[in-house]
Amino acid sequence: MQARREREQMSLILETRKGNISAELAAVARDENRPVETVAAGVACGTVVVPKNRLRRLARPCGIGTGLKTKVNANIGTSTDVVDVDAEMKKMAAAVDAGADALMDLSTGGNLMDVRRMFVSKCPVPIGTVPVYDVMALRFCCNSPISALTSDDFLRAVEDHAKSGVDFVTVHCGLTRRALAVMLAQGRLMDIVSRGGAFLAQWMTETEKENPLFEHYDRLLEIALRYDVTLSLGDGMRPGSVIDATDRAQIEELIVLGGLAQRALAAGVQVMIEGPGHVPLDQVAENIRLEKSLCNGAPFYVLGPLVTDCAPGYDHITSAIGGAIAASAGADFLCYVTPSEHLRLPSIDDVREGVIAARIAAHAGDIVKKVPGAIDRDRAMSEARKKRDWERQISLAIDPEKARAYRSTSTPKQNDVCTMCGDLCSMKMTEGLRKEQKREET
Amino acid sequence: MQARREREQMSLILETRKGNISAELAAVARDENRPVETVAAGVACGTVVVPKNRLRRLARPCGIGTGLKTKVNANIGTSTDVVDVDAEMKKMAAAVDAGADALMDLSTGGNLMDVRRMFVSKCPVPIGTVPVYDVMALRFCCNSPISALTSDDFLRAVEDHAKSGVDFVTVHCGLTRRALAVMLAQGRLMDIVSRGGAFLAQWMTETEKENPLFEHYDRLLEIALRYDVTLSLGDGMRPGSVIDATDRAQIEELIVLGGLAQRALAAGVQVMIEGPGHVPLDQVAENIRLEKSLCNGAPFYVLGPLVTDCAPGYDHITSAIGGAIAASAGADFLCYVTPSEHLRLPSIDDVREGVIAARIAAHAGDIVKKVPGAIDRDRAMSEARKKRDWERQISLAIDPEKARAYRSTSTPKQNDVCTMCGDLCSMKMTEGLRKEQKREET
Repeated sequence: MQARREREQMSLILETRKGNISAELAAVARDENRPVETVAAGVACGTVVVPKNRLRRLARPCGIGTGLKTKVNANIGTSTDVVDVDAEMKKMAAAVDAGADALMDLSTGGNLMDVRRMFVSKCPVPIGTVPVYDVMALRFCCNSPISALTSDDFLRAVEDHAKSGVDFVTVHCGLTRRALAVMLAQGRLMDIVSRGGAFLAQWMTETEKENPLFEHYDRLLEIALRYDVTLSLGDGMRPGSVIDATDRAQIEELIVLGGLAQRALAAGVQVMIEGPGHVPLDQVAENIRLEKSLCNGAPFYVLGPLVTDCAPGYDHITSAIGGAIAASAGADFLCYVTPSEHLRLPSIDDVREGVIAARIAAHAGDIVKKVPGAIDRDRAMSEARKKRDWERQISLAIDPEKARAYRSTSTPKQNDVCTMCGDLCSMKMTEGLRKEQKREET
Repeated sequence: MQARREREQMSLILETRKGNISAELAAVARDENRPVETVAAGVACGTVVVPKNRLRRLARPCGIGTGLKTKVNANIGTSTDVVDVDAEMKKMAAAVDAGADALMDLSTGGNLMDVRRMFVSKCPVPIGTVPVYDVMALRFCCNSPISALTSDDFLRAVEDHAKSGVDFVTVHCGLTRRALAVMLAQGRLMDIVSRGGAFLAQWMTETEKENPLFEHYDRLLEIALRYDVTLSLGDGMRPGSVIDATDRAQIEELIVLGGLAQRALAAGVQVMIEGPGHVPLDQVAENIRLEKSLCNGAPFYVLGPLVTDCAPGYDHITSAIGGAIAASAGADFLCYVTPSEHLRLPSIDDVREGVIAARIAAHAGDIVKKVPGAIDRDRAMSEARKKRDWERQISLAIDPEKARAYRSTSTPKQNDVCTMCGDLCSMKMTEGLRKEQKREET
């Protein structure tokens, strides 16, 4: 009984270090087509995380980190302006259906605990949340002074989330008074664009206190260990404009996060690092290398990055550009961005478009990372294209549904081509070329 | 009279070398906000082209090359399966409206000369074509044996196009017998995916002759000089799968194109080089540097590149990823790819989406290239975002129409935020932070 109890208390990382392979680890190894020992070694040393709350039944666990496929997260959830839980549940289904590997419930409107519990109970993939949003929502709905909040309120929110079964939590522990001072001294176009970060900064300024998630990090680790929640160390200082990218405030925070990640690992808590944001194209790979270096290879979870600020309505594309480069440079986990970013709460269609765009970026990165099997899909697609085997092309497409819809709306005169080239299909013309060569050879 | 005649015979490049500044050059300098001497120097040495047929009235000339904004081309035109000239004219309008800097009429169905003339007469931006398509279409519609075609047929098509006023022509001069032998010897998954290239290869194989556009390149130069048509040296060997990228066949052709570009420049003919195609992300920048090196800095005109083969329905995104990286590495001219690529002739909406995606890629590249003014737009957008000045954000958007539509479908409770964050807008929270700092300072 005592042994069972101890085992229950043990986190995935500690179990793995003892040589025990959990069901989730085995599932990840199968899914990745990698030896389970490789995945276990990654978890043990902190280059791979497999987020799963101890209290949760998780249908489809996912591994995030070095050597594995690049994963995609979709953000969903209510806002203070739009509280439609049914719609958010439909977005969850759409995101999972489109191939999201994880979801974050970023709800800030309505009864947050009810919404969260519904997500946790229905969602087949790992669920992440941002506990500080509860504190924010509480303050805004009661219109109470921010200085009335205590450190305990912030830590209690983390525990509440852990208790409700979420698999990973974003905690902006690196937004220290020092990081804030660096930002204020240097000046910054967009200041803080992270909602949780902005709220913490406000609290820290008004109370003249240190960030409670930094100051009481050991208590945070205890909570994480108790529920086996993975910490996603948030980047409150992420740039919100390409102008602000890779500045001193951002990197000051990253250095702090690196140190905190090391402490988490030592405590047996899984940890990943969150990254930018808005970043000019030529700084994206640098940002990934810097994180890997400063954070001892901890999995890197990036938002985008968006390579320009100028394309509202198309930020799934600006972020697919940055995300593909990030993934190819070693980013492990891409947070999608939808066409609605900067404009409105995303629609169900936006969620779908966002997931697909991020999956394209992830796959383009996986080709470069030489993730086993990645380029084989491109080879198979090209072979099908060469043969004009349309069913096979559609089945290999990242979004078969859209590929089929496009083809079906424009019927070619001959079945083996498409209406773009018709008779003049280069694949058809070149087929003759090879036959000719064969004839010459015989 | 004699002097005027000679002047009429003189190409832009020869005029420029003599120190004469044409109206088009002046317009380009104004549009780019660059000294006209800089643009003229680029044209004179071949790092910039300003395509314009001597016979053409061109409302909006555009400069393509080093130091200038990255430009975007949209391909339109009928196919053998879909001949709807009205629809193509609407696509022309949509492409120009969405911000395309040039168009290519790739028609292969219907009366090609009529279609071409209509484009030339109506299109405000430079028009390019692929003359070999006329030869192809002729052969396919008459079902005549390919061996009945002569070298003269290919050259006549080029002259016909020049005469009808097109500003630049794609000519696949580098697809030599040697390049073909290299490809056949090495083996290649997709062989030749360029339609013109595939057709030429077929003709060369059946007739056992050299590529007429290579063998009679001097005649081609004479035609180009006579009409002052810019040559766009086509890449018949461009990879059609990421598996085939940067292989010996592709680079063999590129070496030939470099030599031909040098001859064009010596003859006073403007010239640019066409490039891939399907290329893994980590090979894109290499491909650009290789072209700049092998072709003495001639403007590089790339198709995509698409960084994966697996996303039919989303090839505007796969190509925006490759195009952004290409542009940032020095590519000068991006040929758009639409969501319909590999599936059907694009719709009007596809054309629009394709142009916008390519423009996003171009702008992301221009930030890195440090094109004057590029990042200023991002700065202005971020400032507007910080102030929650929605009208200004919309006016600065690459596609203001879509940005407005998104915002208008989801009205926030308060006008200065959006429904994504509502009250919890980080920009609003951080505003307080700065005020707090100011209060402390005073």
